[in-house]
Amino acid sequence: MCSESSHPLELCAHREDAVLSTMQDVPLTVTRILNHGTTIHGSSHVTTWTGESEPHRRSYREIGERAAQLAHALRGDLGVTGDERVATLMWNNAEHVEAYYAIPCMGAVLHTLNLRLPVEQLVFIVNHAADRVVIVNGSLLPLLAPLLPHLPTVEHVVVSGPGDRSVLDGAAARVHDYEELLAGKPTTYDWPELDERSAAAMCYTSGTTGDPKGVVYSHRSIYLHSMQVNMAESMGVTDADTSLVVVPQFHVNAWGLPHAVLMTGVNMLMPDRFLQPGPLAEMIETERPTHAAAVPTIWQGLLAELTAKPRDVSSLTQVTIGGAACPPSLMEAFDALGMRVCHAWGMTETSPLGTVARPPAHAVGTDAEFGYRLTQGRFPAGVEARLRGPGGEFLPWDGESAGELEVRGPWIAGAYYGGAAGEPLRPADKFSEDGWLKTGDVGVIGPDGFLTLTDRAKDVIKSGGEWISSVELENALMAHPEVAEAAVVAVPDEKWGERPLATVVLKDGATADYPALKEFLAGRIARWQLPERWAAVPSVPKTSVGKFDKKVIRRQYADGELQVTEVR
Amino acid sequence: MCSESSHPLELCAHREDAVLSTMQDVPLTVTRILNHGTTIHGSSHVTTWTGESEPHRRSYREIGERAAQLAHALRGDLGVTGDERVATLMWNNAEHVEAYYAIPCMGAVLHTLNLRLPVEQLVFIVNHAADRVVIVNGSLLPLLAPLLPHLPTVEHVVVSGPGDRSVLDGAAARVHDYEELLAGKPTTYDWPELDERSAAAMCYTSGTTGDPKGVVYSHRSIYLHSMQVNMAESMGVTDADTSLVVVPQFHVNAWGLPHAVLMTGVNMLMPDRFLQPGPLAEMIETERPTHAAAVPTIWQGLLAELTAKPRDVSSLTQVTIGGAACPPSLMEAFDALGMRVCHAWGMTETSPLGTVARPPAHAVGTDAEFGYRLTQGRFPAGVEARLRGPGGEFLPWDGESAGELEVRGPWIAGAYYGGAAGEPLRPADKFSEDGWLKTGDVGVIGPDGFLTLTDRAKDVIKSGGEWISSVELENALMAHPEVAEAAVVAVPDEKWGERPLATVVLKDGATADYPALKEFLAGRIARWQLPERWAAVPSVPKTSVGKFDKKVIRRQYADGELQVTEVR
Repeated sequence: MCSESSHPLELCAHREDAVLSTMQDVPLTVTRILNHGTTIHGSSHVTTWTGESEPHRRSYREIGERAAQLAHALRGDLGVTGDERVATLMWNNAEHVEAYYAIPCMGAVLHTLNLRLPVEQLVFIVNHAADRVVIVNGSLLPLLAPLLPHLPTVEHVVVSGPGDRSVLDGAAARVHDYEELLAGKPTTYDWPELDERSAAAMCYTSGTTGDPKGVVYSHRSIYLHSMQVNMAESMGVTDADTSLVVVPQFHVNAWGLPHAVLMTGVNMLMPDRFLQPGPLAEMIETERPTHAAAVPTIWQGLLAELTAKPRDVSSLTQVTIGGAACPPSLMEAFDALGMRVCHAWGMTETSPLGTVARPPAHAVGTDAEFGYRLTQGRFPAGVEARLRGPGGEFLPWDGESAGELEVRGPWIAGAYYGGAAGEPLRPADKFSEDGWLKTGDVGVIGPDGFLTLTDRAKDVIKSGGEWISSVELENALMAHPEVAEAAVVAVPDEKWGERPLATVVLKDGATADYPALKEFLAGRIARWQLPERWAAVPSVPKTSVGKFDKKVIRRQYADGELQVTEVR
Repeated sequence: MCSESSHPLELCAHREDAVLSTMQDVPLTVTRILNHGTTIHGSSHVTTWTGESEPHRRSYREIGERAAQLAHALRGDLGVTGDERVATLMWNNAEHVEAYYAIPCMGAVLHTLNLRLPVEQLVFIVNHAADRVVIVNGSLLPLLAPLLPHLPTVEHVVVSGPGDRSVLDGAAARVHDYEELLAGKPTTYDWPELDERSAAAMCYTSGTTGDPKGVVYSHRSIYLHSMQVNMAESMGVTDADTSLVVVPQFHVNAWGLPHAVLMTGVNMLMPDRFLQPGPLAEMIETERPTHAAAVPTIWQGLLAELTAKPRDVSSLTQVTIGGAACPPSLMEAFDALGMRVCHAWGMTETSPLGTVARPPAHAVGTDAEFGYRLTQGRFPAGVEARLRGPGGEFLPWDGESAGELEVRGPWIAGAYYGGAAGEPLRPADKFSEDGWLKTGDVGVIGPDGFLTLTDRAKDVIKSGGEWISSVELENALMAHPEVAEAAVVAVPDEKWGERPLATVVLKDGATADYPALKEFLAGRIARWQLPERWAAVPSVPKTSVGKFDKKVIRRQYADGELQVTEVR
């Protein structure tokens, strides 16, 4: 076979006896996961928390039968064909799992809607994807109903579970009941044999700048990602496990878990809308999951709950934390409870598994182990990584050279969805010239492939061809006894391009002594990185999720709203 | 995307806004495993047993550098281009691992030669594959040298390790020293970006009938198989493991281990030519592997060794057994030593991972567990299976209906290599009309996907549209106190097509009472399956590896050499 592009042509020309692989050409599709998981692992099950004394249990065999019924309903009753988009506005539950399989396996595209987005973004997303059907949990109808008049492509609304349907009265879309649609439909479906590169599911990023951007996962990317999740170096779950999937199914396919666990017969425990610490603690105690996945905020809440009211959580030995860095104190507290935390890093654009922080064998049991666990983790073979400096140059993996992380791999996005009839979008700030994803994250990689992220690229200060970490400066400033909070942003500088501006919130009674603060920093940070510009502020502007809103600070500076002192 | 063939055309025709996946199109190649394993897991290592006090250790980083050097030598010095075949006649050692990566990653095809084959078959295979280079261990030169005059395509012989080179004096092929070839070559190589479906490696089956047949693995099949091996439901190894790879690298790529373990940084322990029980016990005690893989014969020998001379084998907690069924007594004995046996089934045509017998979660700790472990195991998602009866009909997975196993999947062969410039071969007795592999194995599958094999298809008796298991009859006969051995074969029958002929070896002093033997069977086997034809024989003919040679028995019957008694 001489199809490799970088191969000199003469290598191919002079031989006629090309050796062809004799392997079967079998596509990697979500349908294979469905067929396998619902037969060979047919007795494993999805448990959905109901808030009542008995959770709802459904075997994978039943999930498979109902997925077939749902496909018949979507095709026969609702006329969904080809690669039309079917949206879900749902919590994590058995019906959402059925939609996860019925829609891609019939050849359509699953579009999960993030119910926490601002409504304008939800409207934008549904229209951009041109969703034709929305499957919605009854409990979320109050969110959907007022949006419907702004969603002209939505012809059908399918309602699952309890909730007041009357809020849909007068809607232009036809309204169906999920269970009524399924009732009486055949429990098998002649799933088409799909191209593994065809679209299976889509998810929009909730970027803080610009419109949300759609990532379209292929059957192939989902299949390969599922295998990786199941590898012992990643989650390594088997049919002896039950996975508590707290991370929402509308958030990067619940980190790929509903696909991965069906592949190997792991049981799913789904919290539905009961995401508060009390119910979570109760479902862990009574359903005894062995694995769980969620963002740090969820675990902080659970920790407080367990401290206030201890429960038996001894079954839960593996906790995957992603979405944001896990505070060391949280990791230690969970370790003490026997819930071993494993850090992972990823993005909507990476399906999301990018790294997993299992410490290397040589560090286990040593002082270095905890440090490795606090990194973002190590890349698996499916994710190639490189670091690029301010000038685009490639940086070494020495654990010291900080650059923007770029990644490549079969479950990594190489473009964004361009909308109906549009070409895929490849903005230059998101994709490199050779197709790698620019993650927007800045960090270092050690010689053994462990990633430590320090900044978002947009928050790094580009000073004279070098990068200064805003986070490092902030952490150093906040170690000062008189500083309550500190935010550092890049501001334009004639000589250096950019220089850091330090904004500090002082503790009650403290007065601003900038030279002293700068001297304090000098013991911790290289001198050329120290800010010349300082401003005391009453509070740091924050986004709706509580992160520093550096856009606002930069605008305040540009508009002259800050009282800036120069300290040379 | 409307590329699915079984999809009605109208689904595709009426929409123009096809949703395209936005995922990167990154090929699954052995090169990705090489680049990943030799950098991120660069400090893991291959240890090769030398029979001397110090084993030889080489880091994966060095393996990567030497693979690059080997590729430069093969390309620059030996002129290997395109998809030419480079053969290896080698034990399991670090240099063989280097060849495993250099050859496919440069775009050529690795052809591993089974040094235990009869020499005529070796000659056939090398000529059929048109190997241009043979890399050989010095210790195997006495095997290769006399064959060389019959191998006209072999232009170069590369000798690695100790051995008397003088046996090659006068050979037409040019002779090189492996280390001299590598010396001074660059330690990096600009590996081409290959098509994932291109040929990477080939291996010939040592079929007992007809010429050996070549299976050509693609980069894709090797990559996917490696992921499966690393999944927790299969071997589930990580960089905390060391794998003792006893199964030869010339035998189905050592069950895919050299690829799988580099992918995740598992250390390899390679026995080279020291496959005797003593050295194996010694390397387990001193190198402390956690995982090992070999056929039952090896483990029987090791067990005897450990019984005679106990060693500390406590590190070895996971033992993969395949290639033949593991006797229950062996499994129990290994369990008692803390070496947990896991049965696996596969063939050269299945890469080889077909099933792995990890008991299902519900059986662990129950009386059913051991029974599950004695099955061939459960299929992973990558391997689809079906059973077909004597008339080609599909049989249910009820644990009772016996049929020939057919499999399909991305690492399963769909053809055999047709030789230089030949089309792939798809003999109808090996591949079904829709491309599935006919395994030639007969057995049952339980509702939960566990496979139990009972016969080879060619040894089953096809009687009146039903199958009779020869193995079941043999086991029942051998339970009789006066029977030492029994072999049952199919013989032609005018009325039923085929009927069983029972040949028995009686114990000393016993006389042939066939009606009594038949009555003994009647308590254990359905009456219509009982043999009418009986013959006492002094011994059962056996193949070179000790299996019953049923071809010989059938010929003896056809030639009237057996004294047959009819018992109606």
